[in-house]
Amino acid sequence: MDYPYEQAPGAPVRSGIPEHGRIPKYYAVKARIAGLLEQLGEDSVIPTERDLAERYDVARETVRQAVRELVLEGRLRRRGRGTVVAGPKLAQPLSLASYTEGVRRQGRTPGRTLVTLDRFPCPAPLAAETGLTKGEPVWHLERVLLADEERVGLESTYVAVERVPRLDSDFDADSSFYGYLAAQGISFGDADERLETVLATPREALLIGTPPALPMLLIHRVSRDTAGRPLERVRSLYRGDRFSFTAHLQG
Amino acid sequence: MDYPYEQAPGAPVRSGIPEHGRIPKYYAVKARIAGLLEQLGEDSVIPTERDLAERYDVARETVRQAVRELVLEGRLRRRGRGTVVAGPKLAQPLSLASYTEGVRRQGRTPGRTLVTLDRFPCPAPLAAETGLTKGEPVWHLERVLLADEERVGLESTYVAVERVPRLDSDFDADSSFYGYLAAQGISFGDADERLETVLATPREALLIGTPPALPMLLIHRVSRDTAGRPLERVRSLYRGDRFSFTAHLQG
Repeated sequence: MDYPYEQAPGAPVRSGIPEHGRIPKYYAVKARIAGLLEQLGEDSVIPTERDLAERYDVARETVRQAVRELVLEGRLRRRGRGTVVAGPKLAQPLSLASYTEGVRRQGRTPGRTLVTLDRFPCPAPLAAETGLTKGEPVWHLERVLLADEERVGLESTYVAVERVPRLDSDFDADSSFYGYLAAQGISFGDADERLETVLATPREALLIGTPPALPMLLIHRVSRDTAGRPLERVRSLYRGDRFSFTAHLQG
Repeated sequence: MDYPYEQAPGAPVRSGIPEHGRIPKYYAVKARIAGLLEQLGEDSVIPTERDLAERYDVARETVRQAVRELVLEGRLRRRGRGTVVAGPKLAQPLSLASYTEGVRRQGRTPGRTLVTLDRFPCPAPLAAETGLTKGEPVWHLERVLLADEERVGLESTYVAVERVPRLDSDFDADSSFYGYLAAQGISFGDADERLETVLATPREALLIGTPPALPMLLIHRVSRDTAGRPLERVRSLYRGDRFSFTAHLQG
């Protein structure tokens, strides 16, 4: 049989068409707008909701739902009062390389903005998770992640004060924390990561500047140094409409 | 300073509290219901919307929004006419092990239901992606993934007919495809994976039995055998409220 594979590689095959052959009206509109995006190309402004509603002969609310989903999926972006075709998602390697390196490799400019740097006694759950000692002083470093000046994520790092006692005085919060660790002679040994999708909390949405309840990719990392000693615990939240993660697996 | 880390490890720290200290009403209710869930424990039925609205002295719509997000995040589940506390997400290893193995390791029973098994000439994009020859016959095997009888994902596999010429006659579609490959003497060499979050299409939502537009985790895989020859291209879609993925990284 012939195969309906006229879409980009990886596109959902026959997506949107339930087995009984009927598709919701907004989804049909979404598919047509998605087709339009490919013709227009990155950064092009799409027609207004009213124009699209007229073109497809549907209600504006139908167009609005289609556009909303395309925005949540990162295929369209709001820009000022208009809506433009988004570029491809950033593809970050799942590796012990830093955020900085990953973004640079893709030809984008990484950046970070400090939200908080706190010092507090290690609570029991953090001790249990990392192998640090309960009550020992730890830093909490929280930063907004940027790519080409755009806010794309939020990173929380917990690290023992003993490891980096001068973090509050000699670390430039806009630079790579992994670069800083390396400069202190600390090398990564291994890490356990867990990746899931979550909704942005109102605070996170505010800090990253996303619509509330945007699907996010959340990565939990617990890492150790080359001697197997606990190093850091990181919670990294990335915009689901801007990021994908890649891995190379060996059999 | 003392630290507000009274939550489960990995919980968003001070989540929901924007820097200016005000949080949306529905989010405050969500945080209180989340606290209630921990006391109740897995599989407990939570109070009705009306009871919760009375308890927290808010409108039912406010409770509804809070519950809706907790359902999308997989912390609550609809069951019949009630809503129950969900168990933890399944944590699948990002590895060349099969879905079957990953689910079994977590003490759950894996299963699969056949949706389609098609045979068609390899289209150009699939050839470019995998290294197969354009026009050569390929199988498309699409199955719903189950865990303990619950539909949790949807898997599309593309593999050359030359590799597994009798796939349509001697493969039990409810069994492990990787087990089948191994039985044919085919071993995995390596694979490239890309993971992102997407919204379920109406067809996917219907097949998996999820609410439409539920955030899903989508994994693209292109794999090769031990001789480096193209093996399969897989598109696996997992319910974002049921799955997380784990990786062990070496420095």
